[in-house]
Amino acid sequence: MKNQKITVLIQCEDQKGLVAKITGFFFKQGFNILSCQQHVNKAENKYFMRIHVSAEEVALSKADLESQFEALSQVLGINWSINYESDKKKVAIMVSHTSHCLYDLLERQREGDLNCSVEMIISNHDKLRNISEMFGIPYFHLAVVKTDKSKQEGEVVALLEKYDIDLIVMARYMQILSEDFINKYPQRIINIHHSFLPAFQGANPYQRAYERGVKLIGATAHYATVDLDEGPIIEQGVERVTHESTTKTLKRIGADIERLVLAKAVKWHLQNQIIVSDNRAIVFPEAGE
Amino acid sequence: MKNQKITVLIQCEDQKGLVAKITGFFFKQGFNILSCQQHVNKAENKYFMRIHVSAEEVALSKADLESQFEALSQVLGINWSINYESDKKKVAIMVSHTSHCLYDLLERQREGDLNCSVEMIISNHDKLRNISEMFGIPYFHLAVVKTDKSKQEGEVVALLEKYDIDLIVMARYMQILSEDFINKYPQRIINIHHSFLPAFQGANPYQRAYERGVKLIGATAHYATVDLDEGPIIEQGVERVTHESTTKTLKRIGADIERLVLAKAVKWHLQNQIIVSDNRAIVFPEAGE
Amino acid sequence: MKNQKITVLIQCEDQKGLVAKITGFFFKQGFNILSCQQHVNKAENKYFMRIHVSAEEVALSKADLESQFEALSQVLGINWSINYESDKKKVAIMVSHTSHCLYDLLERQREGDLNCSVEMIISNHDKLRNISEMFGIPYFHLAVVKTDKSKQEGEVVALLEKYDIDLIVMARYMQILSEDFINKYPQRIINIHHSFLPAFQGANPYQRAYERGVKLIGATAHYATVDLDEGPIIEQGVERVTHESTTKTLKRIGADIERLVLAKAVKWHLQNQIIVSDNRAIVFPEAGE
Amino acid sequence: MKNQKITVLIQCEDQKGLVAKITGFFFKQGFNILSCQQHVNKAENKYFMRIHVSAEEVALSKADLESQFEALSQVLGINWSINYESDKKKVAIMVSHTSHCLYDLLERQREGDLNCSVEMIISNHDKLRNISEMFGIPYFHLAVVKTDKSKQEGEVVALLEKYDIDLIVMARYMQILSEDFINKYPQRIINIHHSFLPAFQGANPYQRAYERGVKLIGATAHYATVDLDEGPIIEQGVERVTHESTTKTLKRIGADIERLVLAKAVKWHLQNQIIVSDNRAIVFPEAGE
Repeated sequence: MKNQKITVLIQCEDQKGLVAKITGFFFKQGFNILSCQQHVNKAENKYFMRIHVSAEEVALSKADLESQFEALSQVLGINWSINYESDKKKVAIMVSHTSHCLYDLLERQREGDLNCSVEMIISNHDKLRNISEMFGIPYFHLAVVKTDKSKQEGEVVALLEKYDIDLIVMARYMQILSEDFINKYPQRIINIHHSFLPAFQGANPYQRAYERGVKLIGATAHYATVDLDEGPIIEQGVERVTHESTTKTLKRIGADIERLVLAKAVKWHLQNQIIVSDNRAIVFPEAGE
Repeated sequence: MKNQKITVLIQCEDQKGLVAKITGFFFKQGFNILSCQQHVNKAENKYFMRIHVSAEEVALSKADLESQFEALSQVLGINWSINYESDKKKVAIMVSHTSHCLYDLLERQREGDLNCSVEMIISNHDKLRNISEMFGIPYFHLAVVKTDKSKQEGEVVALLEKYDIDLIVMARYMQILSEDFINKYPQRIINIHHSFLPAFQGANPYQRAYERGVKLIGATAHYATVDLDEGPIIEQGVERVTHESTTKTLKRIGADIERLVLAKAVKWHLQNQIIVSDNRAIVFPEAGE
Repeated sequence: MKNQKITVLIQCEDQKGLVAKITGFFFKQGFNILSCQQHVNKAENKYFMRIHVSAEEVALSKADLESQFEALSQVLGINWSINYESDKKKVAIMVSHTSHCLYDLLERQREGDLNCSVEMIISNHDKLRNISEMFGIPYFHLAVVKTDKSKQEGEVVALLEKYDIDLIVMARYMQILSEDFINKYPQRIINIHHSFLPAFQGANPYQRAYERGVKLIGATAHYATVDLDEGPIIEQGVERVTHESTTKTLKRIGADIERLVLAKAVKWHLQNQIIVSDNRAIVFPEAGE
Repeated sequence: MKNQKITVLIQCEDQKGLVAKITGFFFKQGFNILSCQQHVNKAENKYFMRIHVSAEEVALSKADLESQFEALSQVLGINWSINYESDKKKVAIMVSHTSHCLYDLLERQREGDLNCSVEMIISNHDKLRNISEMFGIPYFHLAVVKTDKSKQEGEVVALLEKYDIDLIVMARYMQILSEDFINKYPQRIINIHHSFLPAFQGANPYQRAYERGVKLIGATAHYATVDLDEGPIIEQGVERVTHESTTKTLKRIGADIERLVLAKAVKWHLQNQIIVSDNRAIVFPEAGE
């Protein structure tokens, strides 16, 4: 490997000597350890590590690295993934009517903030096609027929497979995906929900926030799981509101929370900062390397 | 009236000319209008006003002011309350095991931040008596007998009545009050709930927040109503947490949110900044008079 | 006037009866008062009002309204401006190298969030022309010659005059404007400074924030005055940073603060929510009409 | 060592193999590594580590641990400190007129939140003596004579030495300490400044914040150095304010920021979470062990 940067995500049972053994492995192989972040969940006796290394002078091939690390992992009982920074992830963005998250993601990708390629925009409406044209991204309008939603989902899956999509971002896509669909992409679908979960799960959160008279509203980015709005939370944000805020005002204030929260979640996923354990997301902070 | 400051809280149907007529009334009576805050709920066609006036040169007696304002109110269909700043409200604080909110309220009252007298602390445990002694406030330990909770509630009510209590602050009082009790003190019981409502209503919110893997936790001060944790929200606060936060950490971080949120709610109530409409609290910001 | 909405901004010496007299004026003329917000600065004996009215059934012409209100103003010593919602303000955006604020403003305007037309983008560089093309806004590249900056400023002024620009937004325009230029547009130039003013006035605030080791960084939107970075502050925002944050990270985190803070300031200006008094900006909150 | 918990703080030049070698050292000695946090400053080629270990089964004495770790440190060029959790730090709190930070620290210490003993309160005024009596802490009133400030400082130092004080907390102590005093206690004096530094360094920050018309105010906890208000920043906080906020309001809002920010800084210091490098404080987050 030459000039390769690699992020290894690790989870296993907690046990003595883990950090010494794992960092020792990379040190001996000639890697330079850029950052090494750990998390121990004492209550559940679990250990998590994100290790970021550079391979300027490493003789090892990718295959050798992976087989040798697998040997160590067998001994320690580690679940791991090795992610090469040069393998740019392919992203599909799914939208319906609202444009703010879409604009935001496309702009960040275009300005170099997100390490990915946006391969396509998929929508159940034709409304946001003009934005795709502004940014030069293919737009697929796949309408949902109420009597047979699975037909459209099949078309979506076909597209995702054809373009070898790594990450699906539901940027205010207002359709509920089937269990089959979701199970096909574990920890590969990021959704933005327009409330501070677990408050206001489900439909019309801003209307319900207005009615409840809350003094703060929020948004939540999470991995989609088969339980609607109950997947592992990646990031949340809130803003102060008052009795003056109407449902319309809440939507507008919320839009700015949604876009920031979703952008962070996508960025952290692309930078391999997240490990999911049961229904909780360990999100290692960005290290200032 | 001499050197009296008065806060009038008003709600009625929205209609043309309200602000002109109401401010005109006080102007003609010789009051100086220190601040006049309004809120219009267009969707529900409701009008709310908080008007703060001083009566340096006013000939009117309290009774005359009230009867004359009532005459205007009949014409305009206004519900109102007139609050005299010199009538210091009498407060009872109810607690169980945790001390942080109690300390905080007692300290603020002692330092002149809360315009009230704290007449007593009532607890179902004897644990926090030493704090009451530090601050020189009577402490009543009224234990709850599980088989007959109404007995203790009767004793609490007797105390509240005897001392003519205006406001009951549940500063982490971990007993559910009966409907009878709550209905006796409408908009006169402020509770602090240790979550960002409506998330984690009910018991053990920090444990559930940990399990859900939220990235922010919160606290909510609200008026108690017969529906548990569903009364009008006065104030909410949140703080960022991470996967490193255990239930114990969440409790500690939450304690600081709770105390600030409760202190604000109590202060705003005492300063007559709140009007309740259905289940929503209109909280006029503190005017910098 | 028919179906006209009007915002009147008022400042004068504080005096008895102001709110009654002013709201009485609009009530008698047949206006419907949508919201009426006041601020009293007791220390300086100053009174400020923002009154928002609708004129569904008003016989008065614009000229008559203004002359009659002027008559009242003479009596009360009021400085005022009357702003008609149908008079959409014309905006010029000035930029240099960084794109995030430009994208943000153009997107918000395009999506209907900002009540204005963006007439042009002016830059001392050609770099961001492609963004102007995406949004279909004229782009004027007016390079600065170091030996004679006034030449370029003259060209800028000529453009602003030709297109009758109401508001100039400096969306990270990295040139210092001359006193002459600034004095030509009092309270009509909004600048975003990439620090929490008055901290880090002047150049390279992120670098200096890194060196100082601050734990929060911020951004400030203010009206430009001849004293650099010292004009009336409209809005400020902050975000938490850590020792892990490099200057590069601070810039990225700061960019999201900048765009939100600038967008709010521009929106509030366009909605006539701001009154400047000496060097302080009174910003009335958005009323939920 | 039996049932000992130890925090080791490390700084040195960045170099390959550090984490493997240092964690290897503790692993081989039989320590259990509870958490291991690192920071690399690439620009300055510096490495920082906080390693928290427990010694349930360790044969080593304290002296042996320290001499053996010193041997490793010689090789790697490490500056280090070893802190034993059972060595409770002795704290002196210095105050002048305002009580909120004092109350807050005493209450937290009393409730078990701060791992220290508060040995004394020192003040240049007698005003807050009653608070010391509430909490049963010795109070030393050492008045400052303007013509010879060094006399009082000498008395303060004598007290600090006599009681073997580890940490001096300036909880709104409104006297400027001499260079001699400050140099005697490097990284052992924590001060709370009532502004968002570097904004409003020096006197009367709230008055100046009012005059500048800022929209957020803040507080900063930092280690005292000979340059007033320029020491390494440990923590900062802010709150939103408006044009309605008077200097008096700002002081009250600021008091709540001050107490939270100071309490965090003191807690983190006591838990050995801070390493100072030049004028910047690396503050490792609390690990959820």
